[in-house]
Amino acid sequence: MARINEHYRKLKAGYLFPEIGRRVSAFCAQQPEARVIRLGIGDVTEPLPPAVIEAMHTAVDEMAARETFRGYGPEQGYDFLRELIVEHDYGSRGVDISADEVFISDGSKCDTGNILDIFGLDNIVAVVDPVSPVYVDTNVMAGRTGEADEHGRYAGPVYVPVTAENDFVPAIPDRKVDLIYLCYPNNPTGTVVRRETLKKWVDFARASDAIILFDAAYEAYITSPEIPHSIYEIDGARDVAIEFRSFSKTAGFTGVRCAFTVVPHALTGTTGNGTRAEIHPLWNRRQTTKFNGVSYVVQRAAAAVYSPAGREQVRRIIEFYLENARLIRAGLEKAGIRVYGGIDAPYVWLQTPQGMGSWKFFDQLLTRAHLVGTPGSGFGSCGEGYFRLSAFNSRANVEEAVARFQKIVG
Amino acid sequence: MARINEHYRKLKAGYLFPEIGRRVSAFCAQQPEARVIRLGIGDVTEPLPPAVIEAMHTAVDEMAARETFRGYGPEQGYDFLRELIVEHDYGSRGVDISADEVFISDGSKCDTGNILDIFGLDNIVAVVDPVSPVYVDTNVMAGRTGEADEHGRYAGPVYVPVTAENDFVPAIPDRKVDLIYLCYPNNPTGTVVRRETLKKWVDFARASDAIILFDAAYEAYITSPEIPHSIYEIDGARDVAIEFRSFSKTAGFTGVRCAFTVVPHALTGTTGNGTRAEIHPLWNRRQTTKFNGVSYVVQRAAAAVYSPAGREQVRRIIEFYLENARLIRAGLEKAGIRVYGGIDAPYVWLQTPQGMGSWKFFDQLLTRAHLVGTPGSGFGSCGEGYFRLSAFNSRANVEEAVARFQKIVG
Repeated sequence: MARINEHYRKLKAGYLFPEIGRRVSAFCAQQPEARVIRLGIGDVTEPLPPAVIEAMHTAVDEMAARETFRGYGPEQGYDFLRELIVEHDYGSRGVDISADEVFISDGSKCDTGNILDIFGLDNIVAVVDPVSPVYVDTNVMAGRTGEADEHGRYAGPVYVPVTAENDFVPAIPDRKVDLIYLCYPNNPTGTVVRRETLKKWVDFARASDAIILFDAAYEAYITSPEIPHSIYEIDGARDVAIEFRSFSKTAGFTGVRCAFTVVPHALTGTTGNGTRAEIHPLWNRRQTTKFNGVSYVVQRAAAAVYSPAGREQVRRIIEFYLENARLIRAGLEKAGIRVYGGIDAPYVWLQTPQGMGSWKFFDQLLTRAHLVGTPGSGFGSCGEGYFRLSAFNSRANVEEAVARFQKIVG
Repeated sequence: MARINEHYRKLKAGYLFPEIGRRVSAFCAQQPEARVIRLGIGDVTEPLPPAVIEAMHTAVDEMAARETFRGYGPEQGYDFLRELIVEHDYGSRGVDISADEVFISDGSKCDTGNILDIFGLDNIVAVVDPVSPVYVDTNVMAGRTGEADEHGRYAGPVYVPVTAENDFVPAIPDRKVDLIYLCYPNNPTGTVVRRETLKKWVDFARASDAIILFDAAYEAYITSPEIPHSIYEIDGARDVAIEFRSFSKTAGFTGVRCAFTVVPHALTGTTGNGTRAEIHPLWNRRQTTKFNGVSYVVQRAAAAVYSPAGREQVRRIIEFYLENARLIRAGLEKAGIRVYGGIDAPYVWLQTPQGMGSWKFFDQLLTRAHLVGTPGSGFGSCGEGYFRLSAFNSRANVEEAVARFQKIVG
């Protein structure tokens, strides 16, 4: 009798974005003439940079000839890409990471979910609230939680509120936790973490022998010079942190699929009898057994992001999105809306007018302004009364969206 | 205190292919002048077919323009590819599969590992022996086994021997099992399953409410007309089977990364309280939460495999590898070696001379003939005394390999 994994039955509703997709499809079916502008899901809209396109064509041609054809590559990724990452993402900031600590993958969503494979079920997980649903849902699926309460909070994880009240600075938990998710620049709030705050978390993790899962997928959007780009810029973080990075939002790879995860050799966990165990060989074993590496053409595309032309082209795309974010911020503030984030991140987090519920605001924005955003409550109960707008769109659409927003809110 | 998943500590040695890689590297470091021919890991050597190359270039160009750029696609894969699969892989053989039962992924190794996420830990797993190590290792990692014995067999799974003694036909287990792995055309033995044998397994699964995980990654190599290509050609299989397919060995996608998994709506498992639960929504939830879809360019590449030109080009590549297999079979038989498989599959399975141990034979073949194969015992204790040669290589290398083999064995 094949038995299902019953933990899946604890999951509340669908994953956030499919639910948004369903509502938008239903609306579009009713009003097919409506020109809907989507600032919901954080998907890029600018095409791939020319340097990336050129590298992909070259790699495709390599696959056409026996002499240059590539079959299975290393599951951990090609050295040419791992070494570029070490040099440009870490070495340039004075962070000492070796190429074999970098694991290339097809996405940070996959990695932040799959990383749980290598940890015991008895770890207590800490997440900020609001938070990317994937962190919590994957823990539910693995059996690391109990049932959800009426606010959608599961028994087990420690939820750390980040709201306007605490200036979106997560307070160190007053109880023991084992696995800590931090995402900076933050999705969904668009806020960043200051060095001193991050240091407190690293110190806490060291003191309590916890591991921080640091999601830095939006690192490229940091413009404020005092903000750390990598958790490894904090002393002692190599012993307690795994870092996730992605080319999705940086170079527009949401449909190309490339990311990477850094697992330092210094990082250890404990076994049941209290001895130390290195985490690196566990993740290496997981990836070599359950993953077969990223498409060669895609890895060449990612490598091109680090070429002089690629870096310049990516910089311009990011500036473009950040200017979108600035326009959204300014336009909403003009309409009397309180906004957060959107300076070192492609997301603007806003308080709904008159404390309206997030999903109610979603429906109003969709039906009255034909705008799609993301309800804050979809990211956790502390997101209720908030709403996320993404800066990923054309300039014309962003300007039009701001105008429509002002019209219904103003 | 972050605790590791201790089940990883039960895993015996490295994953088979990394171990082979280490031995070959060590040999090459000692004898850098040796021209090693690799018939070990089942990696293709022919370049991608022209139709695939053309489709990839076109797709890359689409990614270069805002109007045709593709960001996040459906996690389950694009309809253009799912519909081609339904038509060509199933409809053409009279099998009724719908497009939404097909989940596109980046590899069958990933899927056969990840599928375990959706099943409870208390299921009893059945595997044939020898077997692809990934089936067993992923169950060990998930905690579905006890420790390994001195033969490398873990407590928990039911091992079904397939050897020359039973003509490589797996007997129906005499005890209850819940999840059954079958792989046909078989890796590593290169043998196929006859319709009447597969029907017995389907009937057994139906009678005992088990689920068959059917790995058909080598389906395209079937030339004998009486052999089923899909488990769904067997009546009643839709209620009890998941099928895994891949473009890796078919169209040379080992470095491109595309595969698919079919989960019929009719397939159900049970819950703790004995009610039925559909498997399809569980896999859909797993994939939408922990996976982000396959690269758009790669999905276009896979779609090109079904174009008239693509089909013809792929057919010729497969014929080329099958002729390699025929040459290996014939050459080994001439040297007095007993060989199996290699007719409807790209693998030849041979009995080592004088009942030599598989790893000993591996080392001899490497050091004396500079040939790399795969030790049968790496696939399970019933593979001891056997050895796998793959047909993936150039004609010149295959001919040279056969000549060297005959020299040291004859």
